[in-house]
Amino acid sequence: MNGDDDTVHLAGYTLPLSPSGRSALVPPPPWHFSGDVLAVEYLADPAAVRSFLPPGITPADPPGLAFAIFGDWQSCTDQGAELTDPVRSQYREFYVALAGQWEGDLVARCPFCWVDQDFSLVRGLIQGYPKKLGRIGITRLFDVGRATPGLLPGAVFGASLAGADRRLVEAEVTLRGPGEAPPLMSAPLVHTRLFPAWTPDGAPVEELVTGGSTDLTIANVWTGDATLSFFESPVDELALLRPVEVLRGYRFSFAETIVGGRLLSGTAR
Amino acid sequence: MNGDDDTVHLAGYTLPLSPSGRSALVPPPPWHFSGDVLAVEYLADPAAVRSFLPPGITPADPPGLAFAIFGDWQSCTDQGAELTDPVRSQYREFYVALAGQWEGDLVARCPFCWVDQDFSLVRGLIQGYPKKLGRIGITRLFDVGRATPGLLPGAVFGASLAGADRRLVEAEVTLRGPGEAPPLMSAPLVHTRLFPAWTPDGAPVEELVTGGSTDLTIANVWTGDATLSFFESPVDELALLRPVEVLRGYRFSFAETIVGGRLLSGTAR
Amino acid sequence: MNGDDDTVHLAGYTLPLSPSGRSALVPPPPWHFSGDVLAVEYLADPAAVRSFLPPGITPADPPGLAFAIFGDWQSCTDQGAELTDPVRSQYREFYVALAGQWEGDLVARCPFCWVDQDFSLVRGLIQGYPKKLGRIGITRLFDVGRATPGLLPGAVFGASLAGADRRLVEAEVTLRGPGEAPPLMSAPLVHTRLFPAWTPDGAPVEELVTGGSTDLTIANVWTGDATLSFFESPVDELALLRPVEVLRGYRFSFAETIVGGRLLSGTAR
Amino acid sequence: MNGDDDTVHLAGYTLPLSPSGRSALVPPPPWHFSGDVLAVEYLADPAAVRSFLPPGITPADPPGLAFAIFGDWQSCTDQGAELTDPVRSQYREFYVALAGQWEGDLVARCPFCWVDQDFSLVRGLIQGYPKKLGRIGITRLFDVGRATPGLLPGAVFGASLAGADRRLVEAEVTLRGPGEAPPLMSAPLVHTRLFPAWTPDGAPVEELVTGGSTDLTIANVWTGDATLSFFESPVDELALLRPVEVLRGYRFSFAETIVGGRLLSGTAR
Repeated sequence: MNGDDDTVHLAGYTLPLSPSGRSALVPPPPWHFSGDVLAVEYLADPAAVRSFLPPGITPADPPGLAFAIFGDWQSCTDQGAELTDPVRSQYREFYVALAGQWEGDLVARCPFCWVDQDFSLVRGLIQGYPKKLGRIGITRLFDVGRATPGLLPGAVFGASLAGADRRLVEAEVTLRGPGEAPPLMSAPLVHTRLFPAWTPDGAPVEELVTGGSTDLTIANVWTGDATLSFFESPVDELALLRPVEVLRGYRFSFAETIVGGRLLSGTAR
Repeated sequence: MNGDDDTVHLAGYTLPLSPSGRSALVPPPPWHFSGDVLAVEYLADPAAVRSFLPPGITPADPPGLAFAIFGDWQSCTDQGAELTDPVRSQYREFYVALAGQWEGDLVARCPFCWVDQDFSLVRGLIQGYPKKLGRIGITRLFDVGRATPGLLPGAVFGASLAGADRRLVEAEVTLRGPGEAPPLMSAPLVHTRLFPAWTPDGAPVEELVTGGSTDLTIANVWTGDATLSFFESPVDELALLRPVEVLRGYRFSFAETIVGGRLLSGTAR
Repeated sequence: MNGDDDTVHLAGYTLPLSPSGRSALVPPPPWHFSGDVLAVEYLADPAAVRSFLPPGITPADPPGLAFAIFGDWQSCTDQGAELTDPVRSQYREFYVALAGQWEGDLVARCPFCWVDQDFSLVRGLIQGYPKKLGRIGITRLFDVGRATPGLLPGAVFGASLAGADRRLVEAEVTLRGPGEAPPLMSAPLVHTRLFPAWTPDGAPVEELVTGGSTDLTIANVWTGDATLSFFESPVDELALLRPVEVLRGYRFSFAETIVGGRLLSGTAR
Repeated sequence: MNGDDDTVHLAGYTLPLSPSGRSALVPPPPWHFSGDVLAVEYLADPAAVRSFLPPGITPADPPGLAFAIFGDWQSCTDQGAELTDPVRSQYREFYVALAGQWEGDLVARCPFCWVDQDFSLVRGLIQGYPKKLGRIGITRLFDVGRATPGLLPGAVFGASLAGADRRLVEAEVTLRGPGEAPPLMSAPLVHTRLFPAWTPDGAPVEELVTGGSTDLTIANVWTGDATLSFFESPVDELALLRPVEVLRGYRFSFAETIVGGRLLSGTAR
């Protein structure tokens, strides 16, 4: 009987709980990621960037430095069973990374993030990624035919984001040649984990955390020219971080494994 | 400058945070709900039901009593601005409510829940609803024409749920006549709020909570015969709670306002 | 053996064909429709309207008269089996109706239309509705609670359309009182049916057709003030027909049965 | 004025028509395709296969030979503008190809096809592909990390199809080694183009057509073992063509350009 010595325990890293734990929307880490990224390095208004940094994170140099990142991802746990059921492993993502400093080191702060799958949304909230659902498109690279760019100088890749049925971002990257990996892509992310209280005597989870990425791999890096546009929306303030100057476009392959984070001594907001 | 006396504070009931707080996926309660419900009262395997109840909740009488609920919803905050931007206010939902007892009172426990919008998913996780994204269909009632059932004896309403691109539930309710509101629909839900820890020294949020629903209104209740089928899935264990006996179908209008919950003294799992 | 006297015939009103005919995306008419409509009567640039009328249709009076229509629909065939499998019967729609004259009578011409279901898209192409897929939102009316407008003076209903992940239309209607049905909603639609040729010696289907709607019912009509905005898009020229002056908003229930059309003597374009 | 000498002509390869022709859902061919394919060669019940062949197409040897094809595609017209707006160029597809003979040559007949974009659906109907909307997943190959199979012996790729919110197909291919291209993938497709009549005196388009594919390229072919399951559905008769014996799995890159077809002397059904 439940509540006695022979209780059936409810298991699960997240809800839904079940006796087996198998129904949970998100399984426990480590989580492995493989994908292709299209990204644009740019300068936003420095005051706007500063207004989105949590206490303790100071602006990086140059002020206003930011990165707009479109990712075409597959993710899985150690056994990799998700990979053969693509509805559970594939998703696309857009996020912005703002350059900041923490104790003298370059860090990245993500003010906005959209994905197109529930497991990624909740897995992101656990880490502090401020995810919403959106619709993301990223030009793909195929090996044959005329309906694909090549990894060649002059090739153009595009990307777009829609949130709440509004187009929020459009970007294009015109490749010029192989290049170096962008520093912001491997900088540690500093996230605010936030889970509201629900009872009068409860306190919200508010933690400033970082770390947790291992085996980070960036390969096949090409750089080039880029365009990037953010559009107004009544529900998303992404346009506050719109480009003042576009610096450079990137296309590369990316992989990492996420294993859990580390608490920073700062305050969450 | 950030971190100083003139800090720009980041605001938001949930992520994403922003200086204005306006970008948050979920605004703070109260949250108002209006909708139509199609539901099936049924008996599941009592041992299966028991295995999904948290410690402290004991089975109700009759054992195995459960309720499968399809909801066609609109929700908003006090100002109601979401109502005129339907992509931010409308969603459909399926969930199961298991009958249980807490200190002698009838309570409901929700083991599984699906919705089709991000704001509803995260708003649900805050309360302890174990939500995933799914695709939900519910026959609608219109005032004119031949492509609608009526509120008449013999009228048939159907509903379905798909999760992870698999059909998980099908139901039909054939109306017989006006009836009484189903007790499980107004029983307090006992939820487990769960937010995983992310840092080595952190502890997950695990709280057994209840309450928070006010101004609950059930109207236009019709009852009738019903069919209900749950289908197997490798990722969702809903079929463990499949009907052993179908008792009755319901269709009704429903409204409530959710304002926050109350901590129970029990343990979360 | 196939091709002989005992041939198995492939059946179907549309593709896919099968021996039973049951797999066809669209079953043969009659098709019954029930729904709720939010609509805005407005004036577009008369020259723009004229440029979207086919030969033989002349502008109505006042010039530029148009109607922007959001429909929340259920549809079915005679047996009504689709109604209990809502994924096969429910859809939402946005279209524009331009006022025109054919042999002295008021007719409506639909230059653009979006729906959110495949069966409705192809069923529309058969009639000459120029349908694409889009995402449509329309404020709903529920019987109870605070998350719904009422059928009351001052109540506000909103609607939106997104196509190709861009928001294309936003509208709001503020009810003032019960009113008369809008004439353009029952005017016969004059459609161009177009099916391209595929072989060198083939000719496209290009027919100017009308008619086919029976048992048209409009009920519960309320009128009021309205706003209406069309947005630019690189792939849809809807903004050419944007409002110069908004005349009036409507909300009403609508039903009809569509049975097949009638060829006009005009040319299709 | 419209209808006079200075008529504004309405242009468009398909609906919607507009003065510029730019709003058409499908632009005229040639259409270029690049993509990756996961496919399973199998034997269905020979009588079932025969019942889906149009008059004039006789069964191939071995009887019941069929091919289940999942495609991850990008498509564009000559200028390639769609490629940088991925919502207009990317789609996924599942279809079955039945082996048949036409005047002694191997041909392929497609009884069922699903895609996830409107432009592909209508472009397919023009050619005679019996397309519906579905949700298709196909394991992807990335260059780095642990969340991807490799092009290696033992690597497993999965795929799935859902239609009308029901899972219809699941497949897995376990690679064994590089192999030869599957003959059915380059066999000419014999399609039935079908566009219903709409007026009492009209006749439907019913044409048996073939051809139109040029510059067909198949590369990077790997073969291996496979599993393939078709599931029952009340609206799709795909399960009639379910595997009796699974022969072989394939993964390869594919490209072609489609330019228009050729009328066969047979009857369409």
